[in-house]
Amino acid sequence: MTSVNLSSFIEEKKAHLETKLPEYVLRLDAPCQLKDAMLYSLKAGGKRLRPLLLFATLEGFGQNYKSSLPVACALEMIHTYSLIHDDLPAMDDDDFRRGKPTNHKVYGEATAILAGDALLTYAFQIISTMDQIAPTQKLSLITELAKASGPEGMVGGQIADMDGENKGLSLDQLEYIHLHKTGDLLGFSIIAGAILSNAKKQDIKNLREFAKHLGLAFQIKDDILDIEGKEEDLGKPVGSDITNEKSTYPKLLGLVGAKKKLANHISAAKEYLYSVNMKYEKLELIVDYIVNRDH
Amino acid sequence: MTSVNLSSFIEEKKAHLETKLPEYVLRLDAPCQLKDAMLYSLKAGGKRLRPLLLFATLEGFGQNYKSSLPVACALEMIHTYSLIHDDLPAMDDDDFRRGKPTNHKVYGEATAILAGDALLTYAFQIISTMDQIAPTQKLSLITELAKASGPEGMVGGQIADMDGENKGLSLDQLEYIHLHKTGDLLGFSIIAGAILSNAKKQDIKNLREFAKHLGLAFQIKDDILDIEGKEEDLGKPVGSDITNEKSTYPKLLGLVGAKKKLANHISAAKEYLYSVNMKYEKLELIVDYIVNRDH
Repeated sequence: MTSVNLSSFIEEKKAHLETKLPEYVLRLDAPCQLKDAMLYSLKAGGKRLRPLLLFATLEGFGQNYKSSLPVACALEMIHTYSLIHDDLPAMDDDDFRRGKPTNHKVYGEATAILAGDALLTYAFQIISTMDQIAPTQKLSLITELAKASGPEGMVGGQIADMDGENKGLSLDQLEYIHLHKTGDLLGFSIIAGAILSNAKKQDIKNLREFAKHLGLAFQIKDDILDIEGKEEDLGKPVGSDITNEKSTYPKLLGLVGAKKKLANHISAAKEYLYSVNMKYEKLELIVDYIVNRDH
Repeated sequence: MTSVNLSSFIEEKKAHLETKLPEYVLRLDAPCQLKDAMLYSLKAGGKRLRPLLLFATLEGFGQNYKSSLPVACALEMIHTYSLIHDDLPAMDDDDFRRGKPTNHKVYGEATAILAGDALLTYAFQIISTMDQIAPTQKLSLITELAKASGPEGMVGGQIADMDGENKGLSLDQLEYIHLHKTGDLLGFSIIAGAILSNAKKQDIKNLREFAKHLGLAFQIKDDILDIEGKEEDLGKPVGSDITNEKSTYPKLLGLVGAKKKLANHISAAKEYLYSVNMKYEKLELIVDYIVNRDH
């Protein structure tokens, strides 16, 4: 598959996801203000990387991606909730996200906290009420999603990240943060596709390793973009990590060292990917897309 | 059963619950700071009303309450997360809860937000990984819990409550708030017991109506206690609703009218309860305990 094909894959899937996503919120019997706040951040765009990884995994196993749309929406809801809470004044205190005012700047802090809570909770409801998949599959998805986003996953990573602010972190500590803060949910995207495809245990095991390296690569790339990216591409100021005295890969390893580490994780990721019994071309293209992105 | 028996029922069950609850957190492979913050609020006491309703429902259907301990812990985690987020400066801005400093006063706002997020997420993980119950039962529990605590439930009620602050609410609006803000999760406690007991549809339907009236009664009692209670019993200042110009049942109906409404909901609740094919005595005693409590 060529990168032209990846563009059309991304466009088609993004469009489908972005049609479905608001539908889930609009059908809710809930106060308008809450639904507005949920929709605002869900519609704020972004790469939709997690759903794309899910879809690519499913297609790699010869499945139709459409059956996984509820999981994709749940995934984006969890990702979006985490961004809303991260941006709060008590956390990163960001006024802008993807070039738009953050949720709490538009709806106020209290509503932003609750919109995040609502998105998180609703994600589990969406999966638990999915049609046409086996109860045990739904339960696996819920367990994996809760682990990936809860105290042992994303929230744990976020706490470690905050705790590490203004401290000189070791590479191990930095890795712990990123494995959990971003890696676990990226990993879920891929594992969910494997669960929905009834993939074999060994394939799931290899995909977990693949996802781990991909997640770290993704974060190193983010750190590098904070130095080398352009504000208009990123939708946020360049160099904010340095201003905030954040521990990053370039800070610990230098820019050249970080780039080398990125390359290592990418090649390790691909090695695991090649060992999976699936058509891995789309996932591989997404990996390349992640490494080469400018935002 | 006499009220002496209720006391021993409450004591035994509370003790068992309060032993189990921290175990779930301690076994987590997560940063200590996060686990400490989660534990702090979980251990802060309270009536444990939701677990008690769950246990009483199970026993009423002739089941052993012990099998439901994971659900009871999940319930307390969701309830506790909602209190942590409610107390935040951006929300109710409370410094004390049950006579102790609130979570954010001890751990800071960011950690409090994340401890809430972690408890909410972990609750779903606990249910999805329960032993010895059927996958379809677990899924029913997860769906019911997500509905009760998410945008159509507790979070929706919370938003409506905030939106109604400093506004003159109608009785209908006030009822909407309480049906969802507190009623839905109380209702889940009872419905979860019925699901775990494989109760018949009609019994579940009647228990839902029972729970609805019980939830409203619980809230009206809260409003009355804010006027008539004692600070040392409540663990918070008396009259805070009036200070905050909150719409309450006594404000809309007068204290006498509110007490009459409370009595009406209690008798409606009991009528539904009597129609359920179960031994309802313990649930009935808990209803009376709710009406007669001083905090």
